[in-house]
Amino acid sequence: MTETTYRLAVVAGDGIGPEVVAEGLKCLAAATEGTGIVFETTEFDLGAKRWHATGETLTDADLEAIKGHDVILLGAIGDPTVPSGVLERGLLLKLRFALDQYVNLRPSRLYPGEVSPLREPGEIDFVVVREGTEGPYVGNGGALRVDTPHEIATEVSVNTRHGVERVVRYAFSVAAGRDRKHVTLVHKHNVLVHAGHLWRRTVEAVAPEFPDVTWDYLHIDAATIVMTTDPSRFDVIVTDNLFGDILTDQAAAVSGGIGLAASGNVNPDKTGPSMFEPVHGSAPDIAGQQKADPSATVLSVAMMLDFLGHGELAAKVEAAVAADAAAKAESGLVRSTAEVGDALAARIRA
Amino acid sequence: MTETTYRLAVVAGDGIGPEVVAEGLKCLAAATEGTGIVFETTEFDLGAKRWHATGETLTDADLEAIKGHDVILLGAIGDPTVPSGVLERGLLLKLRFALDQYVNLRPSRLYPGEVSPLREPGEIDFVVVREGTEGPYVGNGGALRVDTPHEIATEVSVNTRHGVERVVRYAFSVAAGRDRKHVTLVHKHNVLVHAGHLWRRTVEAVAPEFPDVTWDYLHIDAATIVMTTDPSRFDVIVTDNLFGDILTDQAAAVSGGIGLAASGNVNPDKTGPSMFEPVHGSAPDIAGQQKADPSATVLSVAMMLDFLGHGELAAKVEAAVAADAAAKAESGLVRSTAEVGDALAARIRA
Ligand SMILES: CC(C)[C@H](C(=O)O)[C@@H](O)C(=O)O
Ligand SMILES: CC(C)[C@H](C(=O)O)[C@@H](O)C(=O)O
Repeated sequence: MTETTYRLAVVAGDGIGPEVVAEGLKCLAAATEGTGIVFETTEFDLGAKRWHATGETLTDADLEAIKGHDVILLGAIGDPTVPSGVLERGLLLKLRFALDQYVNLRPSRLYPGEVSPLREPGEIDFVVVREGTEGPYVGNGGALRVDTPHEIATEVSVNTRHGVERVVRYAFSVAAGRDRKHVTLVHKHNVLVHAGHLWRRTVEAVAPEFPDVTWDYLHIDAATIVMTTDPSRFDVIVTDNLFGDILTDQAAAVSGGIGLAASGNVNPDKTGPSMFEPVHGSAPDIAGQQKADPSATVLSVAMMLDFLGHGELAAKVEAAVAADAAAKAESGLVRSTAEVGDALAARIRA
Repeated sequence: MTETTYRLAVVAGDGIGPEVVAEGLKCLAAATEGTGIVFETTEFDLGAKRWHATGETLTDADLEAIKGHDVILLGAIGDPTVPSGVLERGLLLKLRFALDQYVNLRPSRLYPGEVSPLREPGEIDFVVVREGTEGPYVGNGGALRVDTPHEIATEVSVNTRHGVERVVRYAFSVAAGRDRKHVTLVHKHNVLVHAGHLWRRTVEAVAPEFPDVTWDYLHIDAATIVMTTDPSRFDVIVTDNLFGDILTDQAAAVSGGIGLAASGNVNPDKTGPSMFEPVHGSAPDIAGQQKADPSATVLSVAMMLDFLGHGELAAKVEAAVAADAAAKAESGLVRSTAEVGDALAARIRA
C-alpha cells in the first residue's frame, strides 16, 4: 500500500466550530481508514478566545505556519463578544486573501429526504462559483468625521481583469464537467456599470474557450427571484464576492437549510493551501450544546478529499450524508452533534 | 365640493411600461371620480425610443419640467437595444437622485388567493424601507486600462450620516404606525465595516426617539435565509440601496410574485416630487402583447394616493387589487392587461 500523507491545518474557531470540526475529523478518519492516506493535523488556536487573550487575530507567524500545510479545515469564525468585523476581516477573510483562495466553491443539492421550504423546488443541483479575493470584500473602505453629523463612510469594490478572468475560467471548466454545461453570470451591470461590464466582457472573452458550455446573465435581484421560483434552472453560477455571499445563503435555504451547505475556498494554482468550511456561521446561541448539525462540515471534508484527488472517498462521504439525511427524515430523531458524526462515520465505514 | 388638483408627470417608459401605466391611470380616474380630486397629467417621452432618436436620456429641461409636478407615475425603464446602464443610470436613477427620493418604500403582502412559492409562507406583511440616494448606486466608480489584461474597475459605495439618518428615522416612524412596531436593520457590517458600522450606530442613535419601536439586526446573507424560511417575521426592514434592491425582489417573489410589487420613491421633505412605480422591470420579451399584469402599477397608484393624504382612496384601490387577486385565483382566467385594468377599475367604482 502506498502511503500518502497530507498536512491538514485545523482552525476550529468560534461558537459551534469546534463541535462540528470534531465530527468532520471523525468522518475524515473513517473515510481514510486502511487506504494508506494519512492526514497529519495541526490545530491552530485562532478566533475569539485567542483575540481576548492576546489581541491577535492571525499573526504573520500563524500565517507562515498555515502555509506549510496542504489543506485547511475551518469550523466557523465570529463571536458577539468581539467587535463585528475584527475576526471576520482579521482572520477568515485574511486567510482567503493571503492564501489567494480565489474560488469560493459552494454546491447546492436538495438531498432526498431534505425538505425545501419551497413548494415545488424541482431537482436542485447547482454550484455557485463565488469570487473570493476581490469585490467589496477587499477592505478598501474608510470613514471620515466618524460619529459626527458629517460622517461619511465608503466601501470600494475592486475588480480586476486578472481576478475576474481566472474565476470565470474556473467556473466554465466546472460547467464543462457537468451534465448541463451551463454558466449563469450574476451581477448588476445596469447599475454597477464599471465592475459589471468588466465581468460581462470577461465572460464573453472566456466563453469561446469552452464551445460546449452555454451561458446567460441575470441581475442579482432577478437571480433571487429565480432562486425562489425555479432554482432547478441553475447549473453553475459565477458571481462576485458579495453577490456570491448573498446568493449562497439563499441557495442553502432553498435546498433544505444551511445545515448541509459546504464550501471550499480553493486556490486552484496551489500557491497556497485551500480551505474547506461549512457555509454556516458560528451560531453562538447554540454553541457548546451539541445541537449543531455537523453535516455541512462533513460535506466540506468530502470537498477537501475531492480537491486532493480522492474523488472516490469524497463520493463515499457524500453518500453517507445523503443516506443519513434520508434516514433522519424518516425517523425524526433529534440527535446530538456527536451522534450525527458517529452515524455518518459508521455509514462511511460500512 | 372642494376641488383639489395635482400635477402628475407620467413616464410610461420602455417595454411593458406604457401598457401598465395606461391601466394605472384608468384606475386612478376610477378612484377619483366624483371626489373633486383631479390629476392633470403631463406625459414625458423618456426611455429607449427617445434615446435612439436623440441620444438624450433626461435633459435639464426635462428635469425642470418634471420638478413642476406634484408626483410622478413611472412604468418601467430599460431596453436590450440600449447599452446596459445608460437608461437605468441616466434616467431612472437620475430621477431618484436629482429629486432626492431618499425613501424607496416597498411593501410586501401576501394577498388572499395569491400563491407563495413557499410551502409555509405565514402571514407576509412587511415594508422594506430602502435607501434611495446613496450606497453603491451613487455612480462613483471607474475603470482603468479597459479591455486590457490589466483592467481594474471600481465601484464606490458612499454612505453619509445625513443620508442614513433620515431614512432610518423614516423607517422607525413607519414602524411606529404599525401593529408590531419592529425594525430590522439589514447590512453586512462584519465585512463592510465602515458603511455597516455607520448604519448600526445611526440606528442606535435614532431608536431612542421611538421608545415603542423595537429593533434587531441581520446580515444581508442571513436576511435572505429568513426571507425564505420565515418572512412573516419581518415588519419594517431598513437597508441600503443595493441590499434593498436585492431583498425587495426576493420579497416580491415569496409574496406571490413581482406582479403585485409596488413601490414609492419618496422625498418626504417634498423638496421634489415623489415617484411611484412597480418593482418589476420593462420585460421587453412580452412588451406590446397585453400580457403584463398591471396590478403592481395600480398598487403604486394607491401608494401615490396615500402619499398625497388620500388614505381612503388608496385603501379602496388596494382593496380592489386584493379582491381581484382572490377572484382570479378562483376563476383561473387568463386576461389581457387592459382586461385586468377594466376589472380593477370596475371594482374601485363599485
Ligand atoms: C463570516 C463572513 C465574513 C463570511 C462572508 O461574508 O464571506 C460568511 O458569511 C461566508 O459566507 O463565508
Ligand atoms: C432598473 C434598476 C436600475 C432598478 C434598481 O436597481 O434600483 C430596479 O431593479 C429597481 O429595483 O427599481
